[in-house]
Amino acid sequence: VICSGGGPDTVRIVAGQYRVGVIGAGQLGQMMIGAAVALGVELHFLSEDPHDPAAQASPHHLLGAATDPDAVAALVARTDVITCEHELVDLQILAQLPTAVHPSASTLASVVDKGAMRAAIAAAGLPAPKWQIITTEDELRRALQQWPNVVAKAPQGGYDGRGLCFIRSGALSDQALNWYRQVGPELLLEPLLEITAELAVVVVRGIDGEIVVYDPVRTVQIDGQCRAVVTPHGLGTNIDRAAREIAVTVAHEIAAVGVLAVEMFVVDGQVLVNELAARPHNSGHHTLDSCVTSQFENHLRAVTGLPLGSTLATHPAAAMVNLIAVDDHTDPRILRHRGLNVDPRVRLHLYGKASRPQRKVGHVTVAGHDLTEVTAVAWQAVRALGCDDREPEAQRQVTNDH
Amino acid sequence: VICSGGGPDTVRIVAGQYRVGVIGAGQLGQMMIGAAVALGVELHFLSEDPHDPAAQASPHHLLGAATDPDAVAALVARTDVITCEHELVDLQILAQLPTAVHPSASTLASVVDKGAMRAAIAAAGLPAPKWQIITTEDELRRALQQWPNVVAKAPQGGYDGRGLCFIRSGALSDQALNWYRQVGPELLLEPLLEITAELAVVVVRGIDGEIVVYDPVRTVQIDGQCRAVVTPHGLGTNIDRAAREIAVTVAHEIAAVGVLAVEMFVVDGQVLVNELAARPHNSGHHTLDSCVTSQFENHLRAVTGLPLGSTLATHPAAAMVNLIAVDDHTDPRILRHRGLNVDPRVRLHLYGKASRPQRKVGHVTVAGHDLTEVTAVAWQAVRALGCDDREPEAQRQVTNDH
Repeated sequence: VICSGGGPDTVRIVAGQYRVGVIGAGQLGQMMIGAAVALGVELHFLSEDPHDPAAQASPHHLLGAATDPDAVAALVARTDVITCEHELVDLQILAQLPTAVHPSASTLASVVDKGAMRAAIAAAGLPAPKWQIITTEDELRRALQQWPNVVAKAPQGGYDGRGLCFIRSGALSDQALNWYRQVGPELLLEPLLEITAELAVVVVRGIDGEIVVYDPVRTVQIDGQCRAVVTPHGLGTNIDRAAREIAVTVAHEIAAVGVLAVEMFVVDGQVLVNELAARPHNSGHHTLDSCVTSQFENHLRAVTGLPLGSTLATHPAAAMVNLIAVDDHTDPRILRHRGLNVDPRVRLHLYGKASRPQRKVGHVTVAGHDLTEVTAVAWQAVRALGCDDREPEAQRQVTNDH
Repeated sequence: VICSGGGPDTVRIVAGQYRVGVIGAGQLGQMMIGAAVALGVELHFLSEDPHDPAAQASPHHLLGAATDPDAVAALVARTDVITCEHELVDLQILAQLPTAVHPSASTLASVVDKGAMRAAIAAAGLPAPKWQIITTEDELRRALQQWPNVVAKAPQGGYDGRGLCFIRSGALSDQALNWYRQVGPELLLEPLLEITAELAVVVVRGIDGEIVVYDPVRTVQIDGQCRAVVTPHGLGTNIDRAAREIAVTVAHEIAAVGVLAVEMFVVDGQVLVNELAARPHNSGHHTLDSCVTSQFENHLRAVTGLPLGSTLATHPAAAMVNLIAVDDHTDPRILRHRGLNVDPRVRLHLYGKASRPQRKVGHVTVAGHDLTEVTAVAWQAVRALGCDDREPEAQRQVTNDH
């Protein structure tokens, strides 16, 4: 890469890529900005809307769809390497780019389609829930005779509880049927499990195969959406070791470059792989405020070929809680002084999104010595910020250990 | 403040200011960007050059001089509050603005002129070196008979060793005389002291007078320029307490709002005030990587009326070393993979400036358990990044305690 620097008379060879094109411009891209500035990395975002969180905070963004070949080509033209901050991408386009793409289209193929993901997990010999793909309504009805209680998932595009439907006692309600007709005909089915806990492990893999692992965290899901993340997970060293090993194995198996988040279930003392995300992930947001190097910085280091940073925790305990808006009117920005007033340790991250019911508009993290205490402070901040308070349910989930 | 948000049909009252106009666009402004994004604060920089560190990293900047009333008025027109990231401002302009200015013109008046600063320190009854102002060459020669060894300072505009001249044995060399003729006729003289150590305390004062204090740090100055900052300072609890008290007293005395850095000398076991800076300061750069809330975030919280964040250290020890370029050719961005390769704990901050001899182009921080170890790692990174290696001198300064 040749770039000018220092004046019109000097031309320099820059080792490694430093202009990164990011497909997508949501909060994940936005949270890369601080690290990019410090590392001398120039981020260029491809955003569908100039008000997207990263677009409004960056001096470099292009308007265009992630699935528009011309828009992606324009992004390629001004950058050295391409990465994604969401998975609603066109793998055909990415596979044919004349530039480095991290993670690669083939890695993304194992992640964006839940069927392909299950197949990759099985190929790696890793434990996962049972699953089957159905492609017609008839097959769905037959499957429900075998597995009366299932979670049905759209193979692509689902996140935060979208693209997800729980069916119990084999009863295909009108509501479920309507949902199927919208997202079908292909569907991934998994039997509903007695889940002891949900875990996530964020790993970062470099271009050279170097891997760093963040401490496994416990995630609290409500209505299929991540609400809170706590560390330490308190599930013992065997579970911890198994979770780390699985995450590292998956990262190598699919040749991830950058952040890979592996979501897992604990069922009957076993760790099962649930979902993968090949990008910075909600289960790693706490790393901004409670680890030496954040997941966002390590993602940028990985995709630009820089050595990876330490994942060590800076505090014995940390709790991250998402800010989910309850209506159109309560903007946490208006209330941020109240949220910050709860405790000087409250770390506030607003995404610059307008409030809408059930929209994730930010998160808070509190780190300290005692997990119970920091979790309580984080939820208190969520309430002070006028956001959805699900502390009792979250509390019940974490304490109802089998 | 009225602002629109969420769509054309909604208009909301935002409590507190959230569009901050920053006079200056150097690295201090640049390091505010990450915190601003997270807090939902929009930064608008007034920069003299579009390649200034903060200007190139921000979607909002205006080109113009800090001393140009029209440029400042344009900044005021698009923001809710004005702050500065350097002190080369026009106090007349700031005093007459129809908007909030933090710190105020009267606070800045006690800081930008060294004579006014000494007077404010004396008025507060705080210990400082002896000083006198001279205004003619004759007065200078007379003063040198009384104090043969002095440090002479230009009353305004000096930083990083500029605007500073050491005169020994009463000998006014041709070089010193030429310097005087350039910066004079007014000059601040102080006798050269036997300095045991240099300390700095960064405090942050809110609009309501709330004050938070970062742990005092030891600073290593070479040729009048800050090269390294280490914590803990190792100078004992009496010095520590005195340093904190002095910094808090000064902040209240001059009604600072935002960061106030107080640089101090330890002489014969006494703490003396040396310099003040009413903005984020080099002696607080480590807070980005070794405290719960950085000085940059707390500055923004203060000037926007938000509660201040915790200043607690996240590690027992931290060392910050400046990256000083040695020539025009060695760009630390080119070598950043080598610098990061030194240790996964190396925190790299590049300012996006072209290299020039003796130019500060970035800094590194390493935090950990043992100060000797993290300091050695930080200097190793400086060497790997091709920057000026003054480890032996820095080492000698820190260990030559009386």
